[in-house]
Amino acid sequence: MGAVILDGKKVAREIKEQVKSKVEELVKRGITPGLAVILVGDNPASQVYVRNKEKTCHQLGIVSLRYDLPKETTEEELLKLIEELNANQNVHGILVQLPLPAHIDERRVLYSISPNKDVDGFHPYNLGRLLIGDPLFLPCTPWGVQELLLRYGIDFEGKNVVIVGRSNIVGKPLAMMLVQKAKGANATVSICHTRTKNLHEYTLLADILVAACGVPRMVKGNMVKEGAVVVDVGINRVDGGLVGDVDFEEVSKVASYITPVPGGVGPMTIAMLMANTVKAAENLFQHG
Amino acid sequence: MGAVILDGKKVAREIKEQVKSKVEELVKRGITPGLAVILVGDNPASQVYVRNKEKTCHQLGIVSLRYDLPKETTEEELLKLIEELNANQNVHGILVQLPLPAHIDERRVLYSISPNKDVDGFHPYNLGRLLIGDPLFLPCTPWGVQELLLRYGIDFEGKNVVIVGRSNIVGKPLAMMLVQKAKGANATVSICHTRTKNLHEYTLLADILVAACGVPRMVKGNMVKEGAVVVDVGINRVDGGLVGDVDFEEVSKVASYITPVPGGVGPMTIAMLMANTVKAAENLFQHG
Repeated sequence: MGAVILDGKKVAREIKEQVKSKVEELVKRGITPGLAVILVGDNPASQVYVRNKEKTCHQLGIVSLRYDLPKETTEEELLKLIEELNANQNVHGILVQLPLPAHIDERRVLYSISPNKDVDGFHPYNLGRLLIGDPLFLPCTPWGVQELLLRYGIDFEGKNVVIVGRSNIVGKPLAMMLVQKAKGANATVSICHTRTKNLHEYTLLADILVAACGVPRMVKGNMVKEGAVVVDVGINRVDGGLVGDVDFEEVSKVASYITPVPGGVGPMTIAMLMANTVKAAENLFQHG
Repeated sequence: MGAVILDGKKVAREIKEQVKSKVEELVKRGITPGLAVILVGDNPASQVYVRNKEKTCHQLGIVSLRYDLPKETTEEELLKLIEELNANQNVHGILVQLPLPAHIDERRVLYSISPNKDVDGFHPYNLGRLLIGDPLFLPCTPWGVQELLLRYGIDFEGKNVVIVGRSNIVGKPLAMMLVQKAKGANATVSICHTRTKNLHEYTLLADILVAACGVPRMVKGNMVKEGAVVVDVGINRVDGGLVGDVDFEEVSKVASYITPVPGGVGPMTIAMLMANTVKAAENLFQHG
């Protein structure tokens, strides 16, 4: 038996091919999508993420403008750069790699990005549009989770979805996406977290269980309903290796489908970032 | 036995007294809070709501500017009025009474209100701030639900909250408020709706059950856990009378606390609108 592996790498490749075609269309019309990526300081993990985003831009024909700022950069300097990029017609998407150094107010920075260039989907305006059911940009990881399952023919309609984790970049926006009265959504959604009294009771209800809590191998086999779909958003560095929030060995014996770590949700996130960047360029083309 | 009645009228009165004191403070500093209320057309229920809001403003010393527009008003005319009110320094809060006539795009209108004057808390920017856990204005009904329970000493910390209904003005924002890692929140939250497969299974999990689905007396006694707190947000006109979404007679025998209809959540909504209006005036005073 054993669960079917949801191959995020493969699906991400398909999406990137589609994005590449859209880029070619735009280039024919005289527009080359541009993504500005701002990295403050020298966090090694952030450097890897930024390099991957840059590389993917190159593969798809998107111009990547990388800004490497020293860790002493002041908040005002960073805000000034964002202001310039907001006004720059060649920049369609702006991404500030998190985390920022402690002396910079992360919220103030995120709020300063033009909602029309907010390809991460972290701006309150975009999160509000998502909540209302009228999204402009969806945050990349939740969108990647939704798209991965849909492309495997797994629908959310009428399903019990349980999300473990209430972050601003995964848990809460994903809950709001999946509860919408809309195609590819329409699920009953529960959000659990560190203060949940009886986590098992909830996770065992789930037809689709999403682990996004940042605790290595926290979801065990006995917490999963037979035949459930399990999505692992976690990426935890343990003993030099990478593990998710799901105990893959145990859970893959119970679940019908499961995402691996790495190669599951991670590649989807980057693919959706590219899709958002092209969408931003198309919006500018259509609405000026 | 029987449940304790959560007296929204009484608690709303307390809150309005506090708001009145704040208004007096502001007036001493030369600021009189002003609320602009726009009503388009002649929907009789809307007229009652607007009259109540106006009356409450008067009681608390808030200036109420009422705009009664004919039902033929164009979207552009309405947007122009909102633009003027956004710029008017004597107007601290702007409220457009819903529903709008069918020829007007409700979203476009709500999106045009300055987020700093959005005392209904319906603007995407404010809903996004709420989701992030950094709220500016909370929508009045969800805020009223939270405040009513807290003032009865009922905390949400670690509780199982189940919300029936996923509207933009109650279900979704309330879920985002109560799931926050914050005082007066920190609950495990589930959102159910018309597509939920087994509603009983969820409602019976609830320590705190919120009905906001707009179906008269939908929540029955056998759907409620013994000792649960039950909040009824519904106001349905049936056989000439008003009933909620909860079968009060049945559920009040099972619940520990219950809100009546009318006199429960309704009065709280208006009180929180007044609190938001004063907050808007205070914000303008503090930040210019």
